[in-house]
Amino acid sequence: MSVKAQVLYDFPAEPGNNELSVQEGEILTVTNQNVGGGWVEARNSRGNVGLVPEDYIEVKNTLIICFVFDFTSLYRALDEIGTFSLFRFSKTPNPEVYLLTKSIAKGNDKLPIYAGEVGPVWLYPQIQLDCVVADPKKGSKMYGLKSYIEYQITPNTTNRPVNHRYKHFDWLYERLVEKFACALPIPCLPDKQVTGRFEEEFIQMRMERLQGWMSRMCRHPVISNSDVFQLFLNYRDEKEWKLGKRKTEKDEIVGVKIFSTIDPELPELDPGQVEQKYEMYSQFTRSMDNSVKELLAVGHLHWKRCTGPLQKEYRQIGKAFQNLSSVFNTSAYPTLSATGKTYEEIAELVAGQPKKDLHFLMETNNEYKGLLGCFPDTVAVHKAAIDKVKEADHLVTMNKVSQQDKHIMEKNLSTMSYALQAEMNHFHSNRIYDYNRLMQFYLEEQVKFYETIAEKLKKALGQYTTI
Amino acid sequence: MSVKAQVLYDFPAEPGNNELSVQEGEILTVTNQNVGGGWVEARNSRGNVGLVPEDYIEVKNTLIICFVFDFTSLYRALDEIGTFSLFRFSKTPNPEVYLLTKSIAKGNDKLPIYAGEVGPVWLYPQIQLDCVVADPKKGSKMYGLKSYIEYQITPNTTNRPVNHRYKHFDWLYERLVEKFACALPIPCLPDKQVTGRFEEEFIQMRMERLQGWMSRMCRHPVISNSDVFQLFLNYRDEKEWKLGKRKTEKDEIVGVKIFSTIDPELPELDPGQVEQKYEMYSQFTRSMDNSVKELLAVGHLHWKRCTGPLQKEYRQIGKAFQNLSSVFNTSAYPTLSATGKTYEEIAELVAGQPKKDLHFLMETNNEYKGLLGCFPDTVAVHKAAIDKVKEADHLVTMNKVSQQDKHIMEKNLSTMSYALQAEMNHFHSNRIYDYNRLMQFYLEEQVKFYETIAEKLKKALGQYTTI
Repeated sequence: MSVKAQVLYDFPAEPGNNELSVQEGEILTVTNQNVGGGWVEARNSRGNVGLVPEDYIEVKNTLIICFVFDFTSLYRALDEIGTFSLFRFSKTPNPEVYLLTKSIAKGNDKLPIYAGEVGPVWLYPQIQLDCVVADPKKGSKMYGLKSYIEYQITPNTTNRPVNHRYKHFDWLYERLVEKFACALPIPCLPDKQVTGRFEEEFIQMRMERLQGWMSRMCRHPVISNSDVFQLFLNYRDEKEWKLGKRKTEKDEIVGVKIFSTIDPELPELDPGQVEQKYEMYSQFTRSMDNSVKELLAVGHLHWKRCTGPLQKEYRQIGKAFQNLSSVFNTSAYPTLSATGKTYEEIAELVAGQPKKDLHFLMETNNEYKGLLGCFPDTVAVHKAAIDKVKEADHLVTMNKVSQQDKHIMEKNLSTMSYALQAEMNHFHSNRIYDYNRLMQFYLEEQVKFYETIAEKLKKALGQYTTI
Repeated sequence: MSVKAQVLYDFPAEPGNNELSVQEGEILTVTNQNVGGGWVEARNSRGNVGLVPEDYIEVKNTLIICFVFDFTSLYRALDEIGTFSLFRFSKTPNPEVYLLTKSIAKGNDKLPIYAGEVGPVWLYPQIQLDCVVADPKKGSKMYGLKSYIEYQITPNTTNRPVNHRYKHFDWLYERLVEKFACALPIPCLPDKQVTGRFEEEFIQMRMERLQGWMSRMCRHPVISNSDVFQLFLNYRDEKEWKLGKRKTEKDEIVGVKIFSTIDPELPELDPGQVEQKYEMYSQFTRSMDNSVKELLAVGHLHWKRCTGPLQKEYRQIGKAFQNLSSVFNTSAYPTLSATGKTYEEIAELVAGQPKKDLHFLMETNNEYKGLLGCFPDTVAVHKAAIDKVKEADHLVTMNKVSQQDKHIMEKNLSTMSYALQAEMNHFHSNRIYDYNRLMQFYLEEQVKFYETIAEKLKKALGQYTTI
């Protein structure tokens, strides 16, 4: 069967790079889905064949009605037809498979939850893992047909660098989603922006964002400790990497099954308590999501104003003073000209400032937007579980579910709730740290900015002789 | 004959004030031109009668073709039909009347020009005249039908206040134009804005501008010393004022005749030198006029941005921080809320700043715009004189003008040029003083503004605990 795909956004091909220019709405035939690196090979209606970024197209035969109880199967099924990223969570994973599970994972797989100062918390490692993403290098494959960028990642634990391409980060991301997304919101990787991807600025920006993503993953006690994440950071050679990959891809403890590995050493919660907590978190993440989006929108506007009309305006003010000064030239007025130049400098300061402070504010809030965007999916699993337990309550009275099964379900629901609580507490502690750091940095830069302008103007003022 | 008038701008009547609402393009019949105070009584097509501001209408029977050699007669003629202000300088006064004059005015009327450091200068008084315009009070006339505002003007010479209405300022202005405008640019009075003219803010603004206008007139050695100006500032009672007015209105030394009172105690200039100076001044005033207008346009834009989108944007930034803070409220984040409030305060600072500094910059440049707007008319008289002398040169060769008359014309042209030079030197010294003061004031306020913002942000930053 030939796979058809619809183009979502215009994509202008980079010359000499085997790419195919496509336009929004155009229908393509996918000729090779296994190109990798975020690319597919496709043919347009005029018969031209070339590479197109997979994020720019939507595979057409996607309307699959599935009544699956196992989220993993859905994932796998979708993954196989290559439409994974489009389909993720278009249907809430059904927690029933887990809710009736009796066994609890043992040994290394076990994820304990403790009573911390702020409530239930994950088990945090003694030394917090971190890594440095650096040194982007250009490589090529397919006999030089396709180029790519390889980053060097050095964890603080081994201090031994490993190399990864964006494609590998993407693989890691997909494994983490598959394994943990029902319990832990896994923030998306930075955008797979494609045009101009070898430009200095884009590479730097992607690296910075991959660094942010990796640091956030490193800070998470569950993720950082997982086999797949450890493999990504610590593999010693190509063989170990390939073997590890294969093993990881066969992992059975994925989707809702992840809850079966969670072991809260805390008193069981009744469904009412669970629901209350659920509502609270649900509301918080929604509100924070709104606020973050508002801040981003305002920041975006401000950025545009600073680099657009405001810069232009200060330039005009500077120019107007300088023009007047040149008219006055006959009777010498260098001071006014200096004032004009000062305002031209202010124009550049105003236009350059967003990169200095607003950038970090936007990046951090963008990260949080991504993170918060995962919460609805994650909490939906919990909501579905609550509904199942409520339903079971009803079914018990009709003798369709045994008291014993109902109790197992309630216990497992309590476990799920502890997972959510531990995750929320993790989120909060990170959030407090991140926003505290962000606001301090932002305000420090803003103070410097206004002080610099005041200094410049003072200097300009000093050139006038007092009357 | 009924006088018809066309409405130039919409004018909404103030209720209970005997005014007539009119619309642009409407044709009115003027029923009383002698209402005074900038008003005429008029009837609209529906038969309603009421007062309309005379600046808002154009009297229709105005197309009078006059070939007058005496500017004064033209003025007088126009003045009688009440269309004076519409007609001013629509035709350059013909300097021929003066160019052939042999006599020089004597005694008090004489206006000497000396060689100063910067070139030819007027005779400056030992103590510079100045006055304070203050204490606007509401009065009424026509049995309470019309209200007006009376200002108190106190000159530094007598320290004795006199009262004048805007109408009197306007009378003074018209006398000054009539007498001096061929030699000295007389800046227009502040706009005769009519709607909302009893509002606090408008009265303050008009007073401020009348102050600026009066101070500029006081600073002028020729104007401040003139009979009409002295009368305006020093009259002791209603009788003296009325007598003085009548006398002044009969003054014969007006229009181009003013040059006959000018007595430069300096070597005669040849017509070539005169033309060269003329070109220089002409170009300078044009360039400065352009620069001043550019600065005003930029200032206007900046004002609008500060009080419009920029204020809005800082408010939004403040609000976004505060909203985020309220989401974070569960774990207490008063510092972020304080940052939000700080940005709201910055919004008000940004919006309030133009009134503090840009206002003075705009006012000063507006004054200069007005002054520079008078120069083309004034220098046109000089240009016409140069042309007449050139023509005379030609007529001498054809024996149509005597050598003697030609020499009188050249001498008088030289006198006119000295008047222009003295006036330009006066203008330059004022300009240097004004712009020096303006720029210092503006920059001082700007420094304060940016320092205040930096201080506020520093305080907001201080509330965060260091990580």
